[in-house]
Amino acid sequence: MRLISYRHKGEAGVGVMVDDTGFVALNNAAPDLPRSLREILSWDGWAAWIEEAVEGKPADLGIDDVVLEPVIPEPQAIWALALNFKMHIEETGLTTSTEHPQIFLRMPCSQVGHLQNMECPRGEISGMYDYEGELAVIIGAGGRYIPKQDALGKVAGYACYNEGSVREFQRHNRQFGLGKNFENSGALGPWMMTADEFGNPANQTVITRLNGVEKQKSGLDDMLFPVEQVIQYLSTGYSLRPGDVIVMGTPGALKPGPDYVAGPNESDRIPGRTHMKPGDTVEVEITGLGVLKNPITQSA
Amino acid sequence: MRLISYRHKGEAGVGVMVDDTGFVALNNAAPDLPRSLREILSWDGWAAWIEEAVEGKPADLGIDDVVLEPVIPEPQAIWALALNFKMHIEETGLTTSTEHPQIFLRMPCSQVGHLQNMECPRGEISGMYDYEGELAVIIGAGGRYIPKQDALGKVAGYACYNEGSVREFQRHNRQFGLGKNFENSGALGPWMMTADEFGNPANQTVITRLNGVEKQKSGLDDMLFPVEQVIQYLSTGYSLRPGDVIVMGTPGALKPGPDYVAGPNESDRIPGRTHMKPGDTVEVEITGLGVLKNPITQSA
Repeated sequence: MRLISYRHKGEAGVGVMVDDTGFVALNNAAPDLPRSLREILSWDGWAAWIEEAVEGKPADLGIDDVVLEPVIPEPQAIWALALNFKMHIEETGLTTSTEHPQIFLRMPCSQVGHLQNMECPRGEISGMYDYEGELAVIIGAGGRYIPKQDALGKVAGYACYNEGSVREFQRHNRQFGLGKNFENSGALGPWMMTADEFGNPANQTVITRLNGVEKQKSGLDDMLFPVEQVIQYLSTGYSLRPGDVIVMGTPGALKPGPDYVAGPNESDRIPGRTHMKPGDTVEVEITGLGVLKNPITQSA
Repeated sequence: MRLISYRHKGEAGVGVMVDDTGFVALNNAAPDLPRSLREILSWDGWAAWIEEAVEGKPADLGIDDVVLEPVIPEPQAIWALALNFKMHIEETGLTTSTEHPQIFLRMPCSQVGHLQNMECPRGEISGMYDYEGELAVIIGAGGRYIPKQDALGKVAGYACYNEGSVREFQRHNRQFGLGKNFENSGALGPWMMTADEFGNPANQTVITRLNGVEKQKSGLDDMLFPVEQVIQYLSTGYSLRPGDVIVMGTPGALKPGPDYVAGPNESDRIPGRTHMKPGDTVEVEITGLGVLKNPITQSA
């Protein structure tokens, strides 16, 4: 099952996809359910409830008729991992603990939904605004002190994440802070695929495309800390809540071929990484899940 | 004017202090105003509106009759500064940029209100749970690209913050992540004093007491990056919103005297720093503003 959060004529709603574009509006099909996916995920047996409500129903609307919000518009927490792909650790030359994951936070207003504009900072503020294709984990039941063997059972579903990063700000000082939290700099979508349908993340691949050209591609089995270990770790200090998002880190850049000529927007640190600029389109695909696509616009 | 957020018989409310314990319940005095201080701060002319509504009114309730919430219970953002006091930089021996502030984030659920329990992690999880007395800045009008000379005009008021930190987790890896976000590990209160009443923060002193013993004491003029510069910096990437909180960093530990004998709960890195444990009481005072007091309890 694939679920979206959207706004239609100003009203918030939750939808159930019937194909890649059409969806059943849950506030028609199941008016008793809340209009917030985060709230729905806190209901016992939400999946069965929804399945029954939409069974056999045709699409009410298409994703082009509405404004798609981040899958969870206002999570209580967005935990994100730095340097969690072996390939990315290698290319950055940075060190990271192999015992404990490296965790930072993003704020809800740093993310937009599928097909919405991701904002490139003004030129005088940054020239290094970068895509980072990632797997997003969305928590269902949550809880504290979750043993590793129970952790995947706490996952409601998965989505794609573009963890847009403003490199100069990320490097201003020792903590990432603002560099990972520019307004509307990231994206979460296109939908949440329920965990039962997606299966084991380690069997899938994340791919990032800039203007149709592959820039990142890696199996999700290349993580230093897999999903269950991160859930266990976070729950030692924090009671995970329905709708919380964990963004699992990004792989490295695909190395360019021998005939490669670096353009004006290429990273001077990492061969194959191209900074995003207004007018670009960026896609994060996770095989078996879907494609999150966003145009890049100039920030006001 | 001093404003609080509280719950009374399960209902959220905003109060205006008439002395150090009694307050006027704003939902009685001004039923048209929202019951959320964050929402009130987004109203034009909120201060004059409130002043008129409560003028001459006696206290309806006392702070012991209610559960005090963090001054802003659910801010859109809690920005926090690391290593912003010269004294603290010196004692930690850590380096920090002198050009750009060092920023990380806290989550709403990592903070409690005045007189509420701050939770010490279980002994097997951490033995180094530390107070950090700080000035909290609460944003009123907000906005993006705020010039330094306009920045203090965006501040609605100030409060005390206990930026409770779990040191082992903070040091697990390069980003602070979970170590600054244990559930109910910090506190924001006792109230917001409006900016006009508090005046220039640089004229005031922050003091932290553990079980009545002074452990930190520093003028708020010892900051590497003062309030106006941090507001300018954050607004380059993010549109500051009413109710946002900026926690300005902590000073160092007061050095112990020559007759000092380190107890079992003393930091082995920083002389004079004592880790908090269940049964302790911790106070953060800012002169001219008030005292934020919290008992330390064992986390469930």
